[in-house]
This record gives sequence, C-alpha cells and structure tokens, in this order.
Amino acid sequence: MVSVAIVGASGYTGGELTRLLLNHPEVEIEDISSRQFEETPIHKVHPHIRGTDLVFKNKKPSELDADIIFTATPHGASMKIIPDLLEIGAKVIDLSGDYRFNDIEVYEKWYGLKHTSDIKGVYGLPEIHREEIKNANLIANPGCFVTGAILSGYPLSKAAIVDRMIFDSKTGVSGAGVNPSSSTHYPNIGDNVNPYKVTSHRHTPEIQQELGLFSDVKVSFTPHLVPVIRGILTTNHSFLIEGSEDISSGELLDIYKKTYEGEPFIQILEDGEIPRLSSIRGSNYAQIGCFEIDETGRLVVISAIDNLVKGASGQAIHNMNIICGFDEKTGLNFFGMHP
Amino acid sequence: MVSVAIVGASGYTGGELTRLLLNHPEVEIEDISSRQFEETPIHKVHPHIRGTDLVFKNKKPSELDADIIFTATPHGASMKIIPDLLEIGAKVIDLSGDYRFNDIEVYEKWYGLKHTSDIKGVYGLPEIHREEIKNANLIANPGCFVTGAILSGYPLSKAAIVDRMIFDSKTGVSGAGVNPSSSTHYPNIGDNVNPYKVTSHRHTPEIQQELGLFSDVKVSFTPHLVPVIRGILTTNHSFLIEGSEDISSGELLDIYKKTYEGEPFIQILEDGEIPRLSSIRGSNYAQIGCFEIDETGRLVVISAIDNLVKGASGQAIHNMNIICGFDEKTGLNFFGMHP
Amino acid sequence: MVSVAIVGASGYTGGELTRLLLNHPEVEIEDISSRQFEETPIHKVHPHIRGTDLVFKNKKPSELDADIIFTATPHGASMKIIPDLLEIGAKVIDLSGDYRFNDIEVYEKWYGLKHTSDIKGVYGLPEIHREEIKNANLIANPGCFVTGAILSGYPLSKAAIVDRMIFDSKTGVSGAGVNPSSSTHYPNIGDNVNPYKVTSHRHTPEIQQELGLFSDVKVSFTPHLVPVIRGILTTNHSFLIEGSEDISSGELLDIYKKTYEGEPFIQILEDGEIPRLSSIRGSNYAQIGCFEIDETGRLVVISAIDNLVKGASGQAIHNMNIICGFDEKTGLNFFGMHP
Amino acid sequence: MVSVAIVGASGYTGGELTRLLLNHPEVEIEDISSRQFEETPIHKVHPHIRGTDLVFKNKKPSELDADIIFTATPHGASMKIIPDLLEIGAKVIDLSGDYRFNDIEVYEKWYGLKHTSDIKGVYGLPEIHREEIKNANLIANPGCFVTGAILSGYPLSKAAIVDRMIFDSKTGVSGAGVNPSSSTHYPNIGDNVNPYKVTSHRHTPEIQQELGLFSDVKVSFTPHLVPVIRGILTTNHSFLIEGSEDISSGELLDIYKKTYEGEPFIQILEDGEIPRLSSIRGSNYAQIGCFEIDETGRLVVISAIDNLVKGASGQAIHNMNIICGFDEKTGLNFFGMHP
Repeated sequence: MVSVAIVGASGYTGGELTRLLLNHPEVEIEDISSRQFEETPIHKVHPHIRGTDLVFKNKKPSELDADIIFTATPHGASMKIIPDLLEIGAKVIDLSGDYRFNDIEVYEKWYGLKHTSDIKGVYGLPEIHREEIKNANLIANPGCFVTGAILSGYPLSKAAIVDRMIFDSKTGVSGAGVNPSSSTHYPNIGDNVNPYKVTSHRHTPEIQQELGLFSDVKVSFTPHLVPVIRGILTTNHSFLIEGSEDISSGELLDIYKKTYEGEPFIQILEDGEIPRLSSIRGSNYAQIGCFEIDETGRLVVISAIDNLVKGASGQAIHNMNIICGFDEKTGLNFFGMHP
Repeated sequence: MVSVAIVGASGYTGGELTRLLLNHPEVEIEDISSRQFEETPIHKVHPHIRGTDLVFKNKKPSELDADIIFTATPHGASMKIIPDLLEIGAKVIDLSGDYRFNDIEVYEKWYGLKHTSDIKGVYGLPEIHREEIKNANLIANPGCFVTGAILSGYPLSKAAIVDRMIFDSKTGVSGAGVNPSSSTHYPNIGDNVNPYKVTSHRHTPEIQQELGLFSDVKVSFTPHLVPVIRGILTTNHSFLIEGSEDISSGELLDIYKKTYEGEPFIQILEDGEIPRLSSIRGSNYAQIGCFEIDETGRLVVISAIDNLVKGASGQAIHNMNIICGFDEKTGLNFFGMHP
Repeated sequence: MVSVAIVGASGYTGGELTRLLLNHPEVEIEDISSRQFEETPIHKVHPHIRGTDLVFKNKKPSELDADIIFTATPHGASMKIIPDLLEIGAKVIDLSGDYRFNDIEVYEKWYGLKHTSDIKGVYGLPEIHREEIKNANLIANPGCFVTGAILSGYPLSKAAIVDRMIFDSKTGVSGAGVNPSSSTHYPNIGDNVNPYKVTSHRHTPEIQQELGLFSDVKVSFTPHLVPVIRGILTTNHSFLIEGSEDISSGELLDIYKKTYEGEPFIQILEDGEIPRLSSIRGSNYAQIGCFEIDETGRLVVISAIDNLVKGASGQAIHNMNIICGFDEKTGLNFFGMHP
Repeated sequence: MVSVAIVGASGYTGGELTRLLLNHPEVEIEDISSRQFEETPIHKVHPHIRGTDLVFKNKKPSELDADIIFTATPHGASMKIIPDLLEIGAKVIDLSGDYRFNDIEVYEKWYGLKHTSDIKGVYGLPEIHREEIKNANLIANPGCFVTGAILSGYPLSKAAIVDRMIFDSKTGVSGAGVNPSSSTHYPNIGDNVNPYKVTSHRHTPEIQQELGLFSDVKVSFTPHLVPVIRGILTTNHSFLIEGSEDISSGELLDIYKKTYEGEPFIQILEDGEIPRLSSIRGSNYAQIGCFEIDETGRLVVISAIDNLVKGASGQAIHNMNIICGFDEKTGLNFFGMHP
C-alpha cells in the first residue's frame, strides 16, 4: 500500500488521476490539492466523483506526506514545487512539460520560460525507459500528443529505416484542459476541424528528442482539434530510406510486434484493422496499426490513445506501478468504453 | 465464483455485459454466443475487448453450462430459449421485454407478439424488488427508459402525492442498438433532436405498471433521440394532488433521501446540483435531483443514467450480485467518465 | 431600398443579421457597430463573412444614420440607447428582452434590472401581431425559446381548449451566445444533456404573457442544453380542458392549419411527419407537428426552429419586411440545410 | 432562363443541387428523378425542401427535356445513361467518377468497373479548366476530396517548387452518402476519428492526374472520417525541391494570391488565419491558408471546403454558370453558416 497526493487535482488530468487511483487496490489517496478550490468537496468540481470524503486542500509542499506525489500543475508551476517535494522524500511524477527535456535550452525556447531547477527527471514512457523509471525519484510524464506520436514511430526509428516522419494528429477537446476559451466553445468546435500551431506546437521538440535517440530522423508535427471529447488519433506518414524501400507491410508488422513484445498496454492491430478512438476510450491501451506503403513509397502507421489516460493520468499510474514494483497493469486493467 | 454465459453477446448490451463481467472478481465467463458471429474472436465484433480468448459460439440452450445466463436477445427471441435455459438449472437474467409484464395482454398489445411462455419473471429493479430478486430464477431486467423514469418517480408514487407524471426523455443513440438505420445515420442525428413514438413507445406501459404499484398515478412518456452516444436524461414533470400542494422542495428532497437510503447506486443531488449525463457516463450510478416546484404547481425531478449500464448491463450484474449474495457493488464499484 | 445599421454586430445574432441582410435585395447595410471590435474588419470576428468592406464602428446613437436600426445588444444595454435611436427618426428592431413585457414589473422581477424607459414596443411575433408591427417604431423581437413555444401553443390557446402547457425545450449551444463559459466548454456539453434554470428561466413570463392573451392557460417551461449548434426543439405537453377531451388529432391539425393559413414561414406537418432541427437548420421556417393525444389525455405538439434565424435574426428581418412593406419572404426565401 | 433536370435527386448531392437550384434566378427545375422514390413528393425524401410542387419521376433519358442535366448517379450508373442524354441535345454535368479520368485504364483499375463509353468529359474544376468548360457538352464534376486537395496544391505544382504532397484529409460523414452503414452509425463515429482506405482511396489517382498536369509531383492521400456532418479539411504536407528551399511564407502567399487572382470562390487567408470548416459551411467558397514551413523543410497548406457544395453540387452549378454564360456567382453568392 502506498500513499499518494495529487497536486493540482481540479483539472482534467487531476480528476482522471483521482478517479483511477480510487480504484487502485494498492493506493491510498492522502491528499488532493487545489489553490482555487480549497476546502471544496471533490464532487463540486468533479461531479462524477461522489460519495468519497475527498476535499481539496491547499497545502504547502512541506506539509504533504505521501510516498508518491503526482503534480498535475501547469508548465512553470511544477518546477517551483518539485524540488521541495523531493526534499520531503516523496517520489514525484510530474505531468507538466517542465522536466521532459534533456536540453534545458530547448525547453526554454519552446516554453518561453526560464528553467529554475537543475534536477533531472526520467522521461516516463515505459515502453522506452522502463529500466530508468524503476529507480527514478522524478518522472517527467510524456505529453499527450508525444505519447501517440512516439508509440507510432519508435519501432521505425529503432530499426533505422526511415528518415522523416510527419505526425498529423487529431485530438479531442479535453486536451485543451478544463478552462473554457473561444476555441473550445461548443459552437466553434462542434461540426468543425481546427488545425492550430501548425508548425509550432511545443510537443514537436519532445517527439524529436525521443525518436532521435535511436536514429537520425526528422520529425514534423501538426495538431488538429476535432469535435471529440477524448482521444488522439495520430497518422504517421513516414518515408523509407534508401536500402529499405523494399520492406513489406508484413515485415513492418513483425518489427512492431517484436519491438512491443510483452508490453502490457500496446495493442498491435493486423488483418486490416485500423486503430480508432472508440476502441481505447477511457483505457490505458494504445492501439497501433496500418503499416501500409503506398505507390509513392510513403509508409503510414496509425496510433490511437486516450489523451487523459495513456496520454496523461494512466501513464502516470503505469509509471507509479513500475516504481513501486506492482504488477504494471494494477488499477489499469480494464478495457475502453465502446460505444 | 460463478460461471456465466451471455446469449446474444454481439450487440451493445452484450458487449457491455462482457466488458463489465471481465472485471468482476467473482465471475468466470464460460460462453458468449451469437448466431451471426459464430467462431469469431470477440475483438472482431467489439474492437475494444482485445487480448482475451473469448470467441463467439452458437450453442443450443441445452449445450450451455453456467450458473447464471444473461439473455441479451431481442424481444420475442428471449421467450423461445428461456424455458430451456431454466430447464438446465441456470438462473436467467433477461434483458428483453419478454418477461417484464405482469399482464401478458399488455405485452401482447404493445409488442405485437403472441407470448409463448407462462413462466413469470421477477421485475429486476433492485430499488423496488430487491427481496423478490434474491430468490428469483428468472429476472426481467428493466427497460432503459423505464429505469430512468421509475427512479425519478418512485418516491413520489410511494408517497402518493402526485396524480400525473410526464416523462420527457432524451436518449443517446446507443439505445437504438448496434444495427445502422436511417435514424441513427450520423448526418441525420448529428446536430439534431428527433422525437419519436411520441405517445406510443412500448416503455410507457412498463413505467405505468411499476409506478402504479404504489398509488394511482397517470403516466405519460415521450422519448427524444439526441446526438449523444450513451445516457438517458429524464425530465419528470409531475403534478401534486390536492392536499399536497404545499410541499416544499426541502421536504421532497427528504422523501427521496429516505426512500433511497442505503441504495448503493442512487445519488441524490442537492445544493442546486442538477443531474447530467457526463456525471454517470459509463457507471452504474443513477443521479436524481432538482425537486423544484414552479408557480403553476408543476414539480420537476430529473434523473440521469447510462442506458447501457444502469439501464441495461450494469443493472443486470447488480441483479446477479443480489442473487448470488455478493456485495451489491462488486464489479460495479467505479465512477463514470468525465470529461 | 432601405438603409440599416446593426448595433452589437459582433455576437451570434449580430453576425447572422449581417449575413442574411447582405443577401437582402432591398437593403443597404450602412453600419455595423461593436465597442469591443472598433475598426476591425468583419471577417476577423465572423470568419465566414469575407470579401465585404464592412468594418465595425463604435458610433454613438446620434451618429447613426439609417432607416432601420437593429439592436443586438444585451438586456439592459438596449434600453439605454433605443430612446436616442428613435429620436433620430429610425425605426428600431430590438433583439434584447428590454421591451418585450407589457408589465414593466414582470421585466424588473425576472431580469433583475430597473427599467429606465417608458417607451412601449410592439411584440414582434408576426403570426400574432402583424397588424401592429406594420406601424411600429419599436419592435421587441421575441426570445428564441419563446418563439418556439408560442408557435406550438398559440392555436391551442386561441381555441381555448387547454388549461396547461408544459414546454420542454432542447436548445443548441449557440443560444448561449458567443462568450465561452464552463457550460459551453466542449468537453462539458459534448455527449451530454444539461437542464438548466429548470423552473426559473426568464423566457417563462414572456411565453405566459403572449399565450395568456387568448385564454386562461398556465404555462411551465424547462430548457435543456443539448450538443447541437443551432436549433430549438420544443415539446409542448398540454392538457385538454373539460368539454374538449374528445377532440381528435385530425381536428387539432385543422385548427393549426386554419390558424396559420397563409403564414409564409409556418410549416404544419402531417402524415406522421415529426419536426426535427435538421429540417429547418439555417432557415426562417418553423415546423409544427405531432398533434397526438395519449391515453391519459395528454396532447403533444412539437415545434422546431433555428434559434438564430426564426428565433432571432430572421424574425427581425421578417419584422423589417413587414414595416417596410416588402414581400414578407424577401431575403428569407430559402430552405434550411440538410444534412 | 435554362431548364434543368437532376437525375438521382434523392441522395445528398441531389438534394443539395435541388435546394441550391431552387434559389438560382436563371434556372427552372423541370425534373427530379429517382427510381426508388418515383411519384414521391420531394419533402418526403428531403424534409427541408417543402412547399414546392416537385415530385420524383422515373423518366428514361429519352423522356427528359432540359437544357442542362445533372447526373447525381453512382459510379457505373452515369456512363449507362449519359450517352443517351447527350443524344437528346442536353449538356450534362456528371457528379460521378465515370468521366473524370483521361486514362480509362486508371478508372478501370481504381473503380473495378469496365468503362462502356468512349465519350470524353471535361474535368470540371473551374480554377484550372475554365476555358474548356465553357464549350463542354459533358462535365466530369470533381470528387469532393479531390477538390480540396487540388485547390491546396495547384499553385505549388504550377510553380514547380515541390516534388511530393501528402494530403491528410478529414471529412464529414455526409460524404459517405445517404445510405446508413456501420461506419456512419452514430455510436460508431460520434466522438471518434476513423481513418479508412489509408493508401487506397480512389480519389488518389484523380488528384495525381490533375496536379501532375503542371509538374512532376508525387501525390499521397489518406482520408479520415470525423464526427462532422459537412466539410473537408485537407492538410497538405509538401516538400520543397532543391533550389526552392529558401522560399518564404510571404512568397508562397503571393504565389497563391496570384494563381487564384479573380477567382470568385477562392479565399486566400493571411495574417495568421487558418481555414476551418465553420467558415465555409453551406457555401461554395474554398478557404486556403497557412503557408508555413517548419524547421525540417516541410511546407503546410490547408484548405477547407463544404463537401456537398464546393465539393459537389455548388461546383456543378458553378460549371453550369460558366457553360451558360451567367455571372459565375449566380445562385451561389452567399456566405457560409457560422455558428
């Protein structure tokens, strides 16, 4: 049994963490915190979580007492409290972008913030960094788009058979967070498709960092907001390098199967099945499929994840399970909701 | 540990039963059956349920061997197999309308079918019939609209303070089942609201039967299809009888709280909170709230359920839990998904 | 040819007025005004209106020079400028609630505002008040819910055959206006149904005022927000008075046909057709249908309108056409968009 | 005044043609035909088109008498009737794929049909083929995806500055036509994103044919179904050839502006505006914008069209206007509907 606290629990990822952890058999939620909702019972903020005795508190880092602390705080806010949380001996799983970059300059350029902490986190994508995660004190939980993109491209980069990947991602609106804005106003996004930050989204360098670990691949990324609540569907258009043009769909499938062998949350689709959001809605599974090559030599791989689960809170719990030595599926062993 | 079989597992309620029962700690799924998909692995039909070894079979009733058999078969089909299923000693939970009516003539009139079986089922709404359910061999699981309507009106009927209830219900499209039709075609129901069977839906007599058990109340019901996947929001417009006009919202709240005291899946809202589908999406909870009375003496109570869970498969599992003597929340002890 | 100005043209009704008036053959748009967007070209605010030379101005009432001025300003703001607009000799069509009430006290009670003007407007529902509209200087354009409700109930009240009407309305989110809020945030209303102001919406007394002109009928109203962009579907549950219980659906249909005979924008449905939003999306038509009576004596009439057209801007243009002596369908003579 | 007939008027493109032509001041609709709905009044099939005296007929080609005949018939059906329609002296605008290909073998390969007619049509994309359209007897109206893709890529191909374009398209469900199927069933596509025919959609060779007219460019195309009723948003990822890498966004914008100078239905966006479906919903406008180049040298251009208007029926009317010598905007001179 481990005790956990969730800092910044009033947003969507904080709510999802709370909901999932309430069903985790090895976890006791000690604290949920929110500056805005101090002393508010949780169901007033998350009306689907009702009948618990959870109440938001606004504790200082030094007042928290938990084995694992999740920081679902905004970029910039996380780095202000994480040093203190590590100080009290907690292991920290951070859902912001603050500790995701190996190169601080990249962070500062893309986030427009001065980084104030020289602590290093472990990049919390279990499919790539499982061994480092086991002993980490600070996990930098990956970005939602990044998770979908990397999972679709990692086997290709590892096999060093492509030199360029274009990630065309379609995301549900919950990825924009809990705060209303013009772009999330129902009449503006209902029945609509809105590309944004077409060549300038800050998840781009994060994808580049991780896929560049394995081979020299150029990464492009464009997100589109679609009238969906949850989920990210990523269409990865890749180009085979000289010498690999003759690879077949079947061989690609084998590469993916082998790369992800034994992974508890990866589902490789075959027999013509294509990933879709409805197949993983609400679950921690990532579906990866397609592996088709067209007449021009373009290779397409498609991934589907739930942005709030595999793309955020579920992956954070997966990381916790690894750190704590639990079976990796503990508390996450359920299928998505369809229809 | 009980063994279960699901007959008619390829539809939405069958899929939902399977998904939920796979996470039920006291259940072993022995068989899922489908005539149409015989020998097909489950993920080809329910692409969210993947990695199990479940394969659809097309067994005869006499070939099934399970403690509990769920029949998620169409109206008319259930009564053809249920006598045989009872014969082999199974307890049966039927999700069709075949055994819901105390008066066979009402069934035959509204369903346009000749009833071929004189077996009686127990009406499986635990909040009203828990004691009978405990010893039942055959449960007639309530209709989805009926569940939402009854839960909103039962305390009023029991208190005998209203003489008329109008249920104006808004349902998600999954209630129409898995088969495509013009009315479920996305361009026809997206961005639309479609009333149907405005005064002739066959859930009307079922609501009337159950609410009429407690007092003399006239029931009207009109369903509307809305661009939602799951969920039924029922607005119950009721009229207080002479002698009860002076009841207050607070007194009504007390009646509801008292009537549903200890019920594991009923959430009574207060402090101005209003039920909404997002608060119970994917869960077995029913939310009931509002209790306001306007200047004309109209009383409004609102309920929200997930039509596939509390309105069908979750309620069926709740009934199973009662029959088997399990804790009633076993396998259903999770909150809904918001956002 | 008449010259028009639109005050408050940056919101949804202002944008819709502009879009429709640009296609009106007898109209020249002189001015569109907005305090917030002064000097901004229209396509920056309404990205679908592009290639015109319209630019928002922020003129004082006395600086405007137009035959007809539409005030698409908020409640409370309209009454501050309308006296001055009338002063300069313009005819004013106001889309706010400020001049809709015959009894100022009702307005002040429901809107929580002190009324500062003793000018009287003509209630701009052409199907009831056409003759007064012809010579009006100030039109109080009806509320969106009110339009759908009245049109469904007016023939019943006029025939004095019912004593109570319950309007259960389902509205698209554009009715909430252009400003984002928690209730219009896509993840909160997508896949959801949200009742609000269940017994306290300020359109209630407006419905009561108009339907009460013809007979003594008690009016109840409850709105529900549904995941739809445009449109209001109103389900009118009415109760026949003693002496009228034996009326048939056919006779009701005749009453509606006769009441609305010659009305250019009313479509009475028969032969089992039921109004739906998709049939009038983007048009000024109102569909009215159903006329069914159930076994308890409840009568159901259903209406469908586009809240931004028949429920606001289209109706305002209809009023202008009447005032100016144009053919009533001028500029509004097009069908809705389906799918 | 020209007389027109619409063959196959019961589908979505046929309905949209009818709706738009009813408002075309130079057109008289002589006939709407449908085998399935012979003798049915139009509002029974298109419930938004009401109050006309249009009734579906099932005439043989030789019985039709019209100046212009639109064939909104399925692939394969068009080529069976068009020779006869030309025989009676009508000009034909065909909305199927039957006459779109210069090379019959390409058609036969991708459509899996034997072509039975050696008549040649003119490819009806006015922005490229206006001069040929003027004198054509048979117009092959472009495919919906093709229209959005070509418009985004034509200036690049004409300028011969890219060697590869990847079109990642997101389409509304009306593109799938009026017939329900599992993929258009609301619970399956609501809240979902579904890629399909990822590398094998038959609009691919059509895009290749037209863009290949101007330079040597390799074309890839992948469509995605999104929960939208109307509209296609195409993200064109292109790669600049050697010698053109240094082109700037501003220069690209100039190329687009110059290429489309004077085009009545092309809107080139600048100042950071990005095309979105809501800006052109229901209109014949195409929006084109973005022109950004990322650090890897990928260039992104985005287009948005209404698949039923600019992508089908509106474009067909535009072609008719050119053939008949009308002002090109006649009957199409209206803005889209937002919200």
